[in-house]
Amino acid sequence: MHRWKPNLNSPVPLHRQISAYMLERISSGDWPPGTQIAPQRELCRLFGVNRSTVVTALGQLSALGLIEGRRGGGTRVSPAAAGQSGGWHSYLEEGSHYPNLPAVQAINRLEFEPGLIRLGTGELAPGLLPEQTMMQILGELSCQPQLPLSYEEPLGSLRLRKALSSQLASSGIQADPSSILITSGALQGLQLIAVGLLPRGSTILLEKPSYLYSIHSFQSAGVKFCGLPMDEEGMLISAISAEAARTRAAMLYSIPGFHNPTGVLMSAQRRLEVMETTAALDLPILEDGAYQELWLDSPPLPPLKALDQEGRVLHLGTLSKSVSPGLRLGWVVGPAPVIDRLADIKMQSDYGSSTLSQLVAARWLEGGYHEAHLTKLRGELRSRRAALLELLQVHFAGLAAWNIPAGGFYVWLSLHTPLPPHRLFKAALQAGVLLNTGDLYDRSDGRHLRLSYAYASLPELKAGIVALANIIRHWSNDK
Amino acid sequence: MHRWKPNLNSPVPLHRQISAYMLERISSGDWPPGTQIAPQRELCRLFGVNRSTVVTALGQLSALGLIEGRRGGGTRVSPAAAGQSGGWHSYLEEGSHYPNLPAVQAINRLEFEPGLIRLGTGELAPGLLPEQTMMQILGELSCQPQLPLSYEEPLGSLRLRKALSSQLASSGIQADPSSILITSGALQGLQLIAVGLLPRGSTILLEKPSYLYSIHSFQSAGVKFCGLPMDEEGMLISAISAEAARTRAAMLYSIPGFHNPTGVLMSAQRRLEVMETTAALDLPILEDGAYQELWLDSPPLPPLKALDQEGRVLHLGTLSKSVSPGLRLGWVVGPAPVIDRLADIKMQSDYGSSTLSQLVAARWLEGGYHEAHLTKLRGELRSRRAALLELLQVHFAGLAAWNIPAGGFYVWLSLHTPLPPHRLFKAALQAGVLLNTGDLYDRSDGRHLRLSYAYASLPELKAGIVALANIIRHWSNDK
Repeated sequence: MHRWKPNLNSPVPLHRQISAYMLERISSGDWPPGTQIAPQRELCRLFGVNRSTVVTALGQLSALGLIEGRRGGGTRVSPAAAGQSGGWHSYLEEGSHYPNLPAVQAINRLEFEPGLIRLGTGELAPGLLPEQTMMQILGELSCQPQLPLSYEEPLGSLRLRKALSSQLASSGIQADPSSILITSGALQGLQLIAVGLLPRGSTILLEKPSYLYSIHSFQSAGVKFCGLPMDEEGMLISAISAEAARTRAAMLYSIPGFHNPTGVLMSAQRRLEVMETTAALDLPILEDGAYQELWLDSPPLPPLKALDQEGRVLHLGTLSKSVSPGLRLGWVVGPAPVIDRLADIKMQSDYGSSTLSQLVAARWLEGGYHEAHLTKLRGELRSRRAALLELLQVHFAGLAAWNIPAGGFYVWLSLHTPLPPHRLFKAALQAGVLLNTGDLYDRSDGRHLRLSYAYASLPELKAGIVALANIIRHWSNDK
Repeated sequence: MHRWKPNLNSPVPLHRQISAYMLERISSGDWPPGTQIAPQRELCRLFGVNRSTVVTALGQLSALGLIEGRRGGGTRVSPAAAGQSGGWHSYLEEGSHYPNLPAVQAINRLEFEPGLIRLGTGELAPGLLPEQTMMQILGELSCQPQLPLSYEEPLGSLRLRKALSSQLASSGIQADPSSILITSGALQGLQLIAVGLLPRGSTILLEKPSYLYSIHSFQSAGVKFCGLPMDEEGMLISAISAEAARTRAAMLYSIPGFHNPTGVLMSAQRRLEVMETTAALDLPILEDGAYQELWLDSPPLPPLKALDQEGRVLHLGTLSKSVSPGLRLGWVVGPAPVIDRLADIKMQSDYGSSTLSQLVAARWLEGGYHEAHLTKLRGELRSRRAALLELLQVHFAGLAAWNIPAGGFYVWLSLHTPLPPHRLFKAALQAGVLLNTGDLYDRSDGRHLRLSYAYASLPELKAGIVALANIIRHWSNDK
């Protein structure tokens, strides 16, 4: 019956490939209403996938009313399969943009379920956000006429861009307001660059693992990834040259300041080498500076953009990691013609970011609240980092190794015994713990976990680490 | 020298094709530094385009420092062309997303130049926006703890979705909060649908002219347009059937309530016919309801979504046209699996819309401010509509015909003598008037102008209409 198999090398998740295949069979009439679907174990064998993949795919079809369980056991094509959902079901597998990874979809959903301990969440706990100051700023704005309720110009609020220009200068980046585009978070900057600057079929180099593997902005735009190995100082220079030549890479993406997910801080020497090597290759750089302000041990190294004499670096920043994700504000800094091209696409995507958010952010920066907040925040993050590292010493000695991050949010836990990430995710979830497994950041990874000390409270961190250690010890002993 | 010619049928603007071609010649070394560029008249002849297209293309290359004018006249490839702009120039013509139409780019820029009379702008004048109420809302929020500074769930703020669910019920649309996705303006809804539901190469049917022709969300996703003719009751039913069969269309896009740009209100009978015809074709509908609340003469007809028994209609709404563009808030209403798919892509695009904007909007709807504001706004728009129609009677009798819109912002002016839109746009600009010419909404149109009574003040409307009539009378007499 089934000779088709999913493509293991496709960026489309296996369960989506399977549900799309079954949809096609059903909607083409190959599997008319009443058709018996093979048992799950059988489907696993036929498709060469594990049980959870089959369950997810069948769940999607069931949610659409296309298949149904029978009282006597077994699953069949629903009698109503023909005219369901206004004909939309075939559209759900269409469109050029890939769906999120299933684990990312699950995380996006589960983060709003109360009671779960979020051990991997890449954002500040609500208690670390500057709520009082933000309320004060709203109070000031409520007394001042000339609220910006209309559209802003394509690059975003000039007032905010001026404030950012000053802010960036303190990290060594000289950027005129006309070289800054305001975006809805750094993520939107990535999206605009993916569809605005890179042709389909081009390749970007990036650290492996990387945050970028967990989203599909670039792959959906037909851009390929070439992962570069890292050591404790950042991406390997030899790999840049070799892979740039082999892939004719169009761009290098890097998170030099407290890399997501590994927490690695690229060394000063490595930064210079990256700039030199890419200059020789005439290779543009996309620098993701989302975490760079969150240094904990010593003041920050200059971003790559601060070392850039040629206008070869695009630099991304955001208020989401340090101030408030909810403002949804980030920025791209680069040569004016590039910024104008990206602004033009942003105008076609959403006509600009919230003017209210932009006004609040401008006032936040102008008022000097930012530095005071960061100083306080660094203190909090240092305590949280210390607490997590102590918990790991107590509960993970012998089970895993880990780095001591000099900033950012993340500890990259390397298990001594590899474990299937999906199984680990599920077991932890049953114990009330939400994990970010390493495969989100490198599809072939079966050994790492991204732990975050930014989100869970100290009691939650303790309970979560203890529960996790128990699960891992149990399984590791099984092997 | 030049055997290449731009492709007149490509959605890529001619000037972009020309600048891309020249860039390729320069960066490949075919045209080394110092190469003399042919005179503009010669380029016009060789490429088969008009002067302004050549001027725009050369201007782009000049802005990048790749060509320069010489003192003795003529233009040549700049000596610095090799190492300019960090190698970015070749990237400006790359990327899968098309640039805006040049006229749209110009409008986006010129709208922020002071002193211009904006006769076509599709937004409310700042004085019509509810600034006092918004300040009052900010004041209330400044006193209440629990500001939402973190991310919201994938569908957007539940509080706002509940408020919208009630609001939609008043227009006859029954939508559970789980069937509503909050977007950054209705435009983002279009973008998500373009990349999320439609495969590359598919076709959508739409009114011609249409707002959708002025943006590139769908074409950039590889989706083709098939325009349907309209009469005074909306799109022609016979065209739907014929074109759906011919193109195997995947979707029908329509603006039944005060169509942009023509101002046409689809009749009740036509709405029923559209629903019946598309039901027989099993054709999903994308209904753009951006203007539907802005009825001026009689309470609104039910939106297509209110007539939808099968979950076959996706409905778009927004606060931008009636309350505040700056909030950047819109919504998509549809079957839950479709909404979930779009939410997943939104999470990959920008992780959600501003939580501050969403909170303000929820309060706006909950507080009953919306209906009071609309009642007042309708009065203002009625006066403005009357003023514009009177001005047209006085100054355009004998020059043009126009409709009397029953709501929305637009009068669709049909000139008795066709005029080249680019020339008209430029001449008006020199007279201090910014126009939205008909070719933005139908590339082959050379006869229409979209006039808006929502933006310019009454004295500006008068001065603008007088200036425009003079330009048109002058040229029409020339012919």
